[in-house]
Amino acid sequence: MNKLSYFAPATAANLAAGFEIFGMALEGPGDIVTIEKASHNSIEVISISGDRGKLPSDPKKNTAAVAVSFLLKHLNLDQGLNISIEKHLPLCSGMGSSAASAAAAVAAANELLEANLPLRELVPFAMEAERVACGSAHADNVAPSLLGGITLIRSYYPLDIINLPFPENLHYALVNPNIEIDTKSARALVPQKFSQQQTVSQTGNAAAFVTALATGNYELLKSSCEDFLAEPYRASLIAGFSLVKQAALDAGATGAGLSGSGPSMFAFSDSLSGAKKCADAMQEIFQKQQIQSKQYVSKIPKAGARKITPK
Amino acid sequence: MNKLSYFAPATAANLAAGFEIFGMALEGPGDIVTIEKASHNSIEVISISGDRGKLPSDPKKNTAAVAVSFLLKHLNLDQGLNISIEKHLPLCSGMGSSAASAAAAVAAANELLEANLPLRELVPFAMEAERVACGSAHADNVAPSLLGGITLIRSYYPLDIINLPFPENLHYALVNPNIEIDTKSARALVPQKFSQQQTVSQTGNAAAFVTALATGNYELLKSSCEDFLAEPYRASLIAGFSLVKQAALDAGATGAGLSGSGPSMFAFSDSLSGAKKCADAMQEIFQKQQIQSKQYVSKIPKAGARKITPK
Repeated sequence: MNKLSYFAPATAANLAAGFEIFGMALEGPGDIVTIEKASHNSIEVISISGDRGKLPSDPKKNTAAVAVSFLLKHLNLDQGLNISIEKHLPLCSGMGSSAASAAAAVAAANELLEANLPLRELVPFAMEAERVACGSAHADNVAPSLLGGITLIRSYYPLDIINLPFPENLHYALVNPNIEIDTKSARALVPQKFSQQQTVSQTGNAAAFVTALATGNYELLKSSCEDFLAEPYRASLIAGFSLVKQAALDAGATGAGLSGSGPSMFAFSDSLSGAKKCADAMQEIFQKQQIQSKQYVSKIPKAGARKITPK
Repeated sequence: MNKLSYFAPATAANLAAGFEIFGMALEGPGDIVTIEKASHNSIEVISISGDRGKLPSDPKKNTAAVAVSFLLKHLNLDQGLNISIEKHLPLCSGMGSSAASAAAAVAAANELLEANLPLRELVPFAMEAERVACGSAHADNVAPSLLGGITLIRSYYPLDIINLPFPENLHYALVNPNIEIDTKSARALVPQKFSQQQTVSQTGNAAAFVTALATGNYELLKSSCEDFLAEPYRASLIAGFSLVKQAALDAGATGAGLSGSGPSMFAFSDSLSGAKKCADAMQEIFQKQQIQSKQYVSKIPKAGARKITPK
């Protein structure tokens, strides 16, 4: 086999109560990365589509290439590779764009090079790509993009990732307004220190959130979707943040908040039609402010990165 | 009915990953409080046994009396009451001594006065007793003492308490060394601000801890019993803290740590015999340092405060 392609989904990180620790895979959209063995000895990004020319093809800066190069280093291989990237999700959207390319690339290379590491073990390589993309090797997007479902980063040192149990009928609405937020700047808004009360409140909600998921308690899910660490500082970046969140809740959402560092926002529902209602209500608020947006509505998928046959 | 008695159990708060939010009821020991309608109009503490004369009978300072007086205020009653307290658990032990008296008292008064509030609604009155006892109206001991099992305080404002699901075979070992630690001083050791990394690590472990309980994953329970907020600052108060913890883990504990603000320490196990082994190993380390200790070993009880017929 000389060439293969992987899809890795968009993701919503943080999920209100889980700054840096929770992340959820979306059913779509996602990025497709094709990796091909090359006769040269280096890693080259030979094509990028769907990025409107914004992504670097320099392998030291491109997240797909960075993730793959860390995998190669780990495997002690100097196989040359050509990487082609099809971006199907917007940049700087709070939907884990950089993570999806890195996840798809590292998963594809893993199979192409017959390394056959479990997807879980690929997370650290994709995290290195996040370090390049946003200055911090966080795992809350790459973990769900690789593993699917809803993930918890219990610990970064050592890295310990858990797939959280969640109810079969859990659906999300994700609305992506046409605003770009640079992850690095959004991260800089979050304080380096938190008060005892902020910390205790955040741990209480994080613990309640996973209890709600494990027991299918939607009322608790709703009350636990509260963020004391990041949302209060980032909300001002998104026009009408509180109104959009309230619109989702008024439309029946069982929890809502910022997706990653924004500007996308998520809401939970126990049905597809319920999620659609929330997405419509959220879009309406953006629309009133002359902000175009896209909606994505689905069940939460159990699969993350997977091999595909490109069209 | 003119008189009745309630038992409320000792409790272990914090449980490593849950500073201020997790608490667990113990099977025993606990305090017994008898409340009797009086002809006078005030609340009087007419007897305290088992405290070696250390507890105040001043109704403004005694936790049982304070909790009852807040309940009376809430009920808008000025019924006079006589309170008798049998302490069966050591003071300043990290076993929720002040909370157990308050919980038993307020539960007894609730029934005697035919208020019939659910036990859950009595928590705020018992919290006021904690404010008097240790300067902070925390709920992580009074909640499990009233409600039993393992409780999570999701939020203090508004107060939201959740009974966490946990495995049927979850057992605890609790070892109480003969050292007194004043809760107020132990609380003062905990910083008022935490770094972003401490906060993220604590939320990760708190979320993992409840996931482990909900799914019966003992390996995860063990790794998630890690405290970044209080234990590192309080450990020095307990002679040989790290050795005792390690002894419990070496004896097969699936998690261990400080009970409340100490000096008691807890360990988890999936069997009674396993818990006994842990308790023995922990006691041995205290013994080597010439510190006497007591051990308590049991399944985690589902019941909290309950009416009893005093002997």
